[in-house]
Amino acid sequence: MPVLVMKFGGTSVATLDRIRRAAKRVGREVANGYDVIVIVSAMSGKTNELVGWVEETSKLYDAREYDAVVSSGEQVTAGLMALTLQEMDVPARSWQGWQVPLKTTSAHAAARIEEIGTEAINAKFAEGMRVAVVAGFQGISPEGRITTLGRGGSDTTAVAFAAAFEAERCDIYTDVDGVYTTDPRITSKARKLDKIAFEEMLELASLGAKVLQTRSVELAMRYNVKLRVLSSFEDNDIDGTAGTLVCDEEDIMESNVVAGVAYSRDEAKMTLLSVADRPGIAAAIFGPLADAGVNVDMIVQNISEDGRTDMTFSLPVNQVDRAKAAMEAVKNSGDVNYAELVTDEDVCKVSVVGIGMRSHAGVASQMFKALRDEGINIKVITTSEIKISVLIERKYMELAVQALHDTFGLDKAA
Amino acid sequence: MPVLVMKFGGTSVATLDRIRRAAKRVGREVANGYDVIVIVSAMSGKTNELVGWVEETSKLYDAREYDAVVSSGEQVTAGLMALTLQEMDVPARSWQGWQVPLKTTSAHAAARIEEIGTEAINAKFAEGMRVAVVAGFQGISPEGRITTLGRGGSDTTAVAFAAAFEAERCDIYTDVDGVYTTDPRITSKARKLDKIAFEEMLELASLGAKVLQTRSVELAMRYNVKLRVLSSFEDNDIDGTAGTLVCDEEDIMESNVVAGVAYSRDEAKMTLLSVADRPGIAAAIFGPLADAGVNVDMIVQNISEDGRTDMTFSLPVNQVDRAKAAMEAVKNSGDVNYAELVTDEDVCKVSVVGIGMRSHAGVASQMFKALRDEGINIKVITTSEIKISVLIERKYMELAVQALHDTFGLDKAA
Repeated sequence: MPVLVMKFGGTSVATLDRIRRAAKRVGREVANGYDVIVIVSAMSGKTNELVGWVEETSKLYDAREYDAVVSSGEQVTAGLMALTLQEMDVPARSWQGWQVPLKTTSAHAAARIEEIGTEAINAKFAEGMRVAVVAGFQGISPEGRITTLGRGGSDTTAVAFAAAFEAERCDIYTDVDGVYTTDPRITSKARKLDKIAFEEMLELASLGAKVLQTRSVELAMRYNVKLRVLSSFEDNDIDGTAGTLVCDEEDIMESNVVAGVAYSRDEAKMTLLSVADRPGIAAAIFGPLADAGVNVDMIVQNISEDGRTDMTFSLPVNQVDRAKAAMEAVKNSGDVNYAELVTDEDVCKVSVVGIGMRSHAGVASQMFKALRDEGINIKVITTSEIKISVLIERKYMELAVQALHDTFGLDKAA
Repeated sequence: MPVLVMKFGGTSVATLDRIRRAAKRVGREVANGYDVIVIVSAMSGKTNELVGWVEETSKLYDAREYDAVVSSGEQVTAGLMALTLQEMDVPARSWQGWQVPLKTTSAHAAARIEEIGTEAINAKFAEGMRVAVVAGFQGISPEGRITTLGRGGSDTTAVAFAAAFEAERCDIYTDVDGVYTTDPRITSKARKLDKIAFEEMLELASLGAKVLQTRSVELAMRYNVKLRVLSSFEDNDIDGTAGTLVCDEEDIMESNVVAGVAYSRDEAKMTLLSVADRPGIAAAIFGPLADAGVNVDMIVQNISEDGRTDMTFSLPVNQVDRAKAAMEAVKNSGDVNYAELVTDEDVCKVSVVGIGMRSHAGVASQMFKALRDEGINIKVITTSEIKISVLIERKYMELAVQALHDTFGLDKAA
């Protein structure tokens, strides 16, 4: 029988009632003829409670014990989901990561999946079991200890199972009904996309559209797993087309040049004025920043003048203090001799994303024109093949998102 | 290094603070030169919550899923305890049942321990780990699924580990400070026993003194594990002699003839009047009662007259309805033809227990005399080698316990 993977996030299994509702959807797919692998998160709030206990117990905790404690949330939901399905006369059983086994690296609390054993679950499918309920987010290390994949790891678990079992599709049930052209809270014109390419989703995911974990999209792209995001709270999936399908770009017939507008509110910009423009200067600056745990995003180096240049980069606003300390240290040690460090904590990032940009010229100029028409000054620009990002003053964020959504006609389907 | 097993029940690990307090005791034993195996229960209330979810999900639940869900409570405490010990610079790690492994039968929710692998933990002790924190109550079945040992199974886990690792002693930390001659709520003269023999503890445990699970005492007796019960809330264990030591009777130099007075409040008595006194009649009565899940305790058969007899038995009062239904069924089917079924739901059981009875005559007559002096009528009597139990009217329970405690001088040490 064809295999379908269905993943239910924390809000979708938050109560016994919601577990029942999720189980009904699973039952429907079983009736449709699928063998189903259900991946469950912990009941919402549970993981935070467990993490809280660990952090209260030990500031610099042993990540192996963290994993043992935190993985228990998914274990509970998996058992309850299996019981609920059995109660509906659907042959089901639960599996924990170590039982599957889902083998990972030993990088506790942030492990990577190495291999998924399909034998045990397939043997049960062959015996007539119709649903394998698997505790998401967890696996087993080569040392035989429980590992977790890091927050949001249940999405990644789901995609990895879909790849390992060659599932027809991987349905991610969540509390939104799909991927939108932009955040509907910013413009009511935001439109749900029926389809989006992996590359676009990847840019949107890392830009702050919190629908899917970036890693899960990368994995889906690598193994070409059809990924569908849909709401577990709306009962509209009568024909298997609800939500948004994240898929290979070849599977998208025609699309807008720009697929969506993303934003990231709490950014900061730092500029090192008058840095010596010599080989190795970038490494001398960004090495220490990385060591300090600063997530540098955009980097711009101005044209050199008299052997000196200005170096500008963006970072999350809550990492500014750390970055300042790191930069003062390199100045004091004589590694980087800059004249002044200028910080702007009042910026945000707005990006347009779309695989159509590859074949359409003029997207950047249309974007800059739309911002100019609103009187919005651009502070930094970076571009990739399918994305253009700008750093602007934070107070213009909503205005910029709305203007870009309008200028690229995102309220209308292609 | 010598091994010590320390078990902490649910109330002793109910909060992070209490876990810290328990960890301090463990640290002290490590400082005393022991390698310690800590067995933990779930935080108090946790198991009930999990059981509640399972029962709400499914009335006739799959016990394998029940075990997967319910075992998660101990997993959390084990991790938190290991982290707390590490925080105190005590080298520790947690183990779940399947990691040890603690192998059990497949009787889910009521599994029996088959074997404890000592290799992995001993290897870690050899490497310098000083504390193995083990999740109590759980193991792994031959099929590789998580099993639980039934309620109170953490005591049994602790004793089994003490036997497998040839521990010097198994300390059970609980919310009382030892085993008493009787319930201190009934008489202020109740005295904590320093030592009690396994056999006596076994009788007291099954008679309703809820300090230790019966199975754990049986196991300790079979493997001659020195078992100590003490409070985790009093900090009086400076010389290793706090609480009550449950041990082989040879280790008790001198003791009272009677060690303690136990009671069980909510009993009922049923009598089948005028039953045919023929071979197989007892089986015809008690077989169907067992099938109906009735825990028959005392059984008395009167002298036969004209080939007919009366059959009396005691049972928990909340099983009376079930027992009545079973007895009506056997009457209707013609298997047991009795004249009348008389039920007395207003009785309790009081027992005196002591290995000294074996060598001392007259305990029974002293007991009956003390009850007579208080005007208490005895309805049923049963005796074993080290125990005499009587069924009396419930309203006399406290009075009977006090009178027996006095007459056998239990307020004074031997």
